[in-house]
Amino acid sequence: MNLAELTQALLQFRDERNWAQFHTLRNLIVSLNLEAAELLELTQWKSEEEMLEISGEALRDECADVMLYLLLIAEKAGIDLEQAARNKLKKNAEKYPVAKSYGSSRKYTQLTQLAQPESHED
Amino acid sequence: MNLAELTQALLQFRDERNWAQFHTLRNLIVSLNLEAAELLELTQWKSEEEMLEISGEALRDECADVMLYLLLIAEKAGIDLEQAARNKLKKNAEKYPVAKSYGSSRKYTQLTQLAQPESHED
Amino acid sequence: MNLAELTQALLQFRDERNWAQFHTLRNLIVSLNLEAAELLELTQWKSEEEMLEISGEALRDECADVMLYLLLIAEKAGIDLEQAARNKLKKNAEKYPVAKSYGSSRKYTQLTQLAQPESHED
Amino acid sequence: MNLAELTQALLQFRDERNWAQFHTLRNLIVSLNLEAAELLELTQWKSEEEMLEISGEALRDECADVMLYLLLIAEKAGIDLEQAARNKLKKNAEKYPVAKSYGSSRKYTQLTQLAQPESHED
Repeated sequence: MNLAELTQALLQFRDERNWAQFHTLRNLIVSLNLEAAELLELTQWKSEEEMLEISGEALRDECADVMLYLLLIAEKAGIDLEQAARNKLKKNAEKYPVAKSYGSSRKYTQLTQLAQPESHED
Repeated sequence: MNLAELTQALLQFRDERNWAQFHTLRNLIVSLNLEAAELLELTQWKSEEEMLEISGEALRDECADVMLYLLLIAEKAGIDLEQAARNKLKKNAEKYPVAKSYGSSRKYTQLTQLAQPESHED
Repeated sequence: MNLAELTQALLQFRDERNWAQFHTLRNLIVSLNLEAAELLELTQWKSEEEMLEISGEALRDECADVMLYLLLIAEKAGIDLEQAARNKLKKNAEKYPVAKSYGSSRKYTQLTQLAQPESHED
Repeated sequence: MNLAELTQALLQFRDERNWAQFHTLRNLIVSLNLEAAELLELTQWKSEEEMLEISGEALRDECADVMLYLLLIAEKAGIDLEQAARNKLKKNAEKYPVAKSYGSSRKYTQLTQLAQPESHED
């Protein structure tokens, strides 16, 4: 099953329940944020060791919830999600040139100088 | 290009920049939340009419950013995102039986009685 | 009881439970975000009419939770919250001059021209 | 200046700009979430050491923004924020009895047994 088929299953789920009336773009975006927060809640108060033991099912379910709302938003807005992700990855590659961002977690707006790449030959 | 190929392209992007060191599960989940908030920001102060005019590119890019972090989280945690979404959709179908949730926006914990379905008089 | 006294009561609550060990700045900020999301959840799927009927207690409690974490963050970072809020309000007044922002919901970065102010004398 | 005076200054700021029309409860709650996310963004990709160096002004300003929206929400909903925070702290003290929550970061729903307190051997 690919994203298009998943979206179809999701629309059928929605329509069987007559929920399209609630699925405005605004409501879907709010709901995606709430699901993202539930994902964040899985990390709350966790030490680094405890982070490794996050239950697979809880994590899978919260990721799935984000995915499902993302598909609904994309469908609503006529966005091809895979195409959009590919394009954004290209943009990011331009915003973060390897020479300036190698090993650096700085935001692109703060990439003022070359990062120090891996090897110092002398 | 499917999600597996997209993930590969994303990992290559990450590794060319030596960013795996920053990509802990916690950091990726925080970043996904920040991208979700940027999506939410597109709706800020907007009237219903203005919501219809949200720029396609901004919306596409923010959806893409959420998607990209979701793929990184899934890769990190060994989650098959499409499978997880399918399973969650099944769970949701059980939590929200049509008879109880038809036309209702109540949370499943508050579905105490039957919703009123279409009422097919004949 | 003022904010300083409230903060003292909060620190006592924390210390009686030996929770200071969990209260890193990062953890407190994550928790504040989770409480903000619970506030947002009160609006989920709500129509404008339903928004008017949000239960006073739920809203009070969620606002309180945001407030409590904000006090903990401020205490941790040595911030005088009332002073900070006053200063920020001044900054906002400069970023949003009345002549440019009157009746407009635009972000300050997009305040390119004068808004139409209140009175049209002729 | 106390919270009541701060709220008055904030309402004056709002009214000088004719912004009350945008300040629905829903919009204010969304905006508070966006400010909370900006606070979270200050922690993004930061190591524990880098967290210690977060610029005081950025942190102060983001805390202030959360505070300002919280005051607007409270004013809109007729909530006495200090009273609400005090009441919630009392509720929390009941949800998290010292004997069960001492030194534990578990959620109250998972406090099934006594935490191990300091162990006073005598």
